[in-house]
Amino acid sequence: MAAAAVSGVTAAGQHDQTVVGLPASNPVKQPWVWPLPQKWERGTSTLKVNENIHFDFESHNTILSKAVKRYHNLIFQKDDYPMIPYNWTTTDSHARSSLSSVYIDIRDKSDHLDMDTDESYSLTIPVSGKAIITAKTVYGALHAIETFSQIVQYSPGLHSYVIPNAPWKISDYPKYKHRGLLLDTSRHYYAVKDIEKTIDTLSWNKMNVLHWHMIDSTSFPYKSKAYPQLAEKGSYSPAHQYDAKTISGVVQYAKERGVRVIPELEAPGHSTSWGYGIPEIASCVNHVPYFGYTVQPPSGQLNIAKNKTKEVVNKIIDEWAELFTDSFFHASGDEVVMACWTNDTIVASYLKEHNMSVTELFQKFVLDMQDHVRSHKKTVMVWQEMLLEYQFPLPKDTVVQVWVGSSGVKATTEMGYKTVVSSSDYWYLDVGYGKPRSNPYPDVAGAGYNHWNRVYSYDIRANLTKAEADLIIGGECTLWGELADHTNFEGKIWPRASAVAERLWSGYETPSGENITSADAILRLLPWRDRMLLRGTMASPLNQGFCTRNPLDCFQPPE
Amino acid sequence: MAAAAVSGVTAAGQHDQTVVGLPASNPVKQPWVWPLPQKWERGTSTLKVNENIHFDFESHNTILSKAVKRYHNLIFQKDDYPMIPYNWTTTDSHARSSLSSVYIDIRDKSDHLDMDTDESYSLTIPVSGKAIITAKTVYGALHAIETFSQIVQYSPGLHSYVIPNAPWKISDYPKYKHRGLLLDTSRHYYAVKDIEKTIDTLSWNKMNVLHWHMIDSTSFPYKSKAYPQLAEKGSYSPAHQYDAKTISGVVQYAKERGVRVIPELEAPGHSTSWGYGIPEIASCVNHVPYFGYTVQPPSGQLNIAKNKTKEVVNKIIDEWAELFTDSFFHASGDEVVMACWTNDTIVASYLKEHNMSVTELFQKFVLDMQDHVRSHKKTVMVWQEMLLEYQFPLPKDTVVQVWVGSSGVKATTEMGYKTVVSSSDYWYLDVGYGKPRSNPYPDVAGAGYNHWNRVYSYDIRANLTKAEADLIIGGECTLWGELADHTNFEGKIWPRASAVAERLWSGYETPSGENITSADAILRLLPWRDRMLLRGTMASPLNQGFCTRNPLDCFQPPE
Repeated sequence: MAAAAVSGVTAAGQHDQTVVGLPASNPVKQPWVWPLPQKWERGTSTLKVNENIHFDFESHNTILSKAVKRYHNLIFQKDDYPMIPYNWTTTDSHARSSLSSVYIDIRDKSDHLDMDTDESYSLTIPVSGKAIITAKTVYGALHAIETFSQIVQYSPGLHSYVIPNAPWKISDYPKYKHRGLLLDTSRHYYAVKDIEKTIDTLSWNKMNVLHWHMIDSTSFPYKSKAYPQLAEKGSYSPAHQYDAKTISGVVQYAKERGVRVIPELEAPGHSTSWGYGIPEIASCVNHVPYFGYTVQPPSGQLNIAKNKTKEVVNKIIDEWAELFTDSFFHASGDEVVMACWTNDTIVASYLKEHNMSVTELFQKFVLDMQDHVRSHKKTVMVWQEMLLEYQFPLPKDTVVQVWVGSSGVKATTEMGYKTVVSSSDYWYLDVGYGKPRSNPYPDVAGAGYNHWNRVYSYDIRANLTKAEADLIIGGECTLWGELADHTNFEGKIWPRASAVAERLWSGYETPSGENITSADAILRLLPWRDRMLLRGTMASPLNQGFCTRNPLDCFQPPE
Repeated sequence: MAAAAVSGVTAAGQHDQTVVGLPASNPVKQPWVWPLPQKWERGTSTLKVNENIHFDFESHNTILSKAVKRYHNLIFQKDDYPMIPYNWTTTDSHARSSLSSVYIDIRDKSDHLDMDTDESYSLTIPVSGKAIITAKTVYGALHAIETFSQIVQYSPGLHSYVIPNAPWKISDYPKYKHRGLLLDTSRHYYAVKDIEKTIDTLSWNKMNVLHWHMIDSTSFPYKSKAYPQLAEKGSYSPAHQYDAKTISGVVQYAKERGVRVIPELEAPGHSTSWGYGIPEIASCVNHVPYFGYTVQPPSGQLNIAKNKTKEVVNKIIDEWAELFTDSFFHASGDEVVMACWTNDTIVASYLKEHNMSVTELFQKFVLDMQDHVRSHKKTVMVWQEMLLEYQFPLPKDTVVQVWVGSSGVKATTEMGYKTVVSSSDYWYLDVGYGKPRSNPYPDVAGAGYNHWNRVYSYDIRANLTKAEADLIIGGECTLWGELADHTNFEGKIWPRASAVAERLWSGYETPSGENITSADAILRLLPWRDRMLLRGTMASPLNQGFCTRNPLDCFQPPE
């Protein structure tokens, strides 16, 4: 029995754009937009899109002016031989009118960006006349333009860009406020252009947070004004550093794309690299066998008994609080090994002298550090260990990031904390590549590869009460840097981070209560991956080229 | 206890090239050459290398002339801030003389390349005077130049390229004759420049076979002269084809780098794409549910009952026998599903009429096909199913490629067949990325990710008698194309294929009987990955940057 007879699809004759791929009676019940908009209506007409299309808005909006320039390039890009044959163009001969203008109406003129920024928008594309975007903020308008850009297709038949299925009426908003990616620039350094490229792709996926894990044990790329020796001695080289100007540039670049940059100050664990520039503030630097002092070489934690340590850390916080304009600041706190401190003679003497346990001193250090962050009117984020492992009395305004498996989400929300979900068993994008070291070191997070479908399948609300679920402010996928660098980071992030993006933006059900399934999603994710490729993002393939052309055959075999 | 005290390594102060990384008393007992040469002697002197170094040889050797030009560029490349600090340059101040000339002596003037080509060479670099390369063939000389290129390092201290540890005396030859990579250009198409880049990197790793899996069910990119409709209808697009001129160019490109190109004519399974151009020669094209007719969508096998099928296949064999000048020809034969044929009315009638079983007809088809390959004086390669699953009476000169797990090697060699090892559980480079499809389809090869150390750990001689082991002519790692394409193929292949390369070239013991261990290998593989990067190959990282700088700390923790 041939597939054509069952599903309406024929794969015979790969070149004929009118018969390959999705059939004219489009079985894809959702628009080819990623992430899926909350509400949409569409028609059956095809509009041509004028390549000189005009975006009409108040001209002093510089964020919008720049965005429109970018999108002019992004919209009018074509692949002469796309893997996705644009079946929508089968209605080409009926294309009636041409769209020449998009009016953008923004209510709130402020360009302030934080977690509570209103990102909603509506987009209307009539069969004739102007398209209209309305949004509360410029950031909603950016999302609207992105959605618009994804609706435009190139029609080989008409030798023109077209909008199929007009008229369109989209009303959209995110389910979760915090939609992010963690990038680790310590284990391997990323050039600014790689970070910017990542911000671009985040914004296309309507993600709004770059969690910048800048420093770690392996290298200290931050060029501090107060303590330049930290980068001088602790970075991989003078070419592997981020100075204030660079960071401000990245923050501004991100803001113009609706992306917040949240810095993570990794401390007091994973801190070997601080000790290269200022040896006195570090304990157990390069102690061997490492395994006794750290979960991963090299060993080294901040010396929590010294005032100098607090002085240096506070100064870096002061500098970052200014450079990173976002209202969130990640104060870290993960993976310390007590033996690093108990074997440090200075720490040991201090504990004895003050009759304190090492955990008490650790608690004092991190709570003081977090208070210093709060003194800059920042919301403190921490890793789950602070709460679940060490059970420190964190103020209730602390945002806790869960990473050790998915069970942590229940625990943190049960305790009433706002939670960001990064469960390693679903949303770690760096794992599954085996043990990067010889014995006796354990695997990184010990997890298998998280295939896109597994990433997408993760219901971050599982087993939660309504009240608990409401405490989830969003999530982040992570690309830790052991086995990722310039050569492979984009393919590891994309398109899997897109799966996270859709769950955090679109959620798990449509507003009318219909489940959003991976079987539906793959039909949109395949062309979305191709569009990201066309835009220059090296997103990995999801399946053989045949499946991209004939998704119903590969992904929805009739029973 | 600081690492420095134990291993001689200090990681304190990352920028100081004299103290970071491997200590001056080089603990790496093997030269930084990949794959490891069979025999080497080295000294303690440092030579400068003249950037106008002259390679002296008979000028009419065009392969050598071109190689020398290439290597002039490859040798004199530097990374201003390499992840591997060249500790060898700690002897900079003692650099005495400058090397300006390499004399190349080739005994055999023929440039014929096949499995039995002598690839051995010797390389001598004295403390003063000319370096000397001797080789039986130009292909041995190419390997010698590659080895030479890897011995040259840039010294930041001397602002010069240097050869450390002179004098050198290397005598080298491969343990196995067949050292290859399979590239699948059907599931995803690769541009010629990607194939050429792969050939480049193969040659740097002293690998000598590109197994070109050109066609499969998903697309038919080969532009046949006799049957142009096969590519016209069966390729992904006119831009996704290989014509005769392109193929000859690739074969010549490879030959100039000592790499043989062995074509695989996938038949009669995995053959849907033939049916797009010539429907009458295919059975069960796009039958659903696919799972009953194929191991992977789309379904479709050659119609083994029709004369026309034989006619087309033989014609393609004729064309390929000429285009692919190598003496090997892969006649495939894997993964057929009998139900595809037994449900085909034409095949079923034929079987009834001739009173044959489907297996008998299948056997006749493949043995006839193999005979036709032999009529071109080619050695026939097949997949293991031909022998181990279907137990067809293959002539003893057939080379059998094992892929279904490692146990097949024992089986094929026990039966006395020359064997190429590609066991999926060790040497498949495409697996480990989860199920690329929804249920009910099985995972690709069902295997986990093969980490470099697992790849390297595979002893292809395990459990074999001496006589059986002697039947192994070599091996191939594979990059099947479900989840690999232009965006990620290099990072999936390299540096893991380098691990295969070393096992096949250097073997498992040195000529003096010492085991070649992964603990030794990683110290050479880290800089080799960095050198491949410098040459433009997007090889994936093996561990955090810190570990590249301080390999003894990450990979050889003192007990």
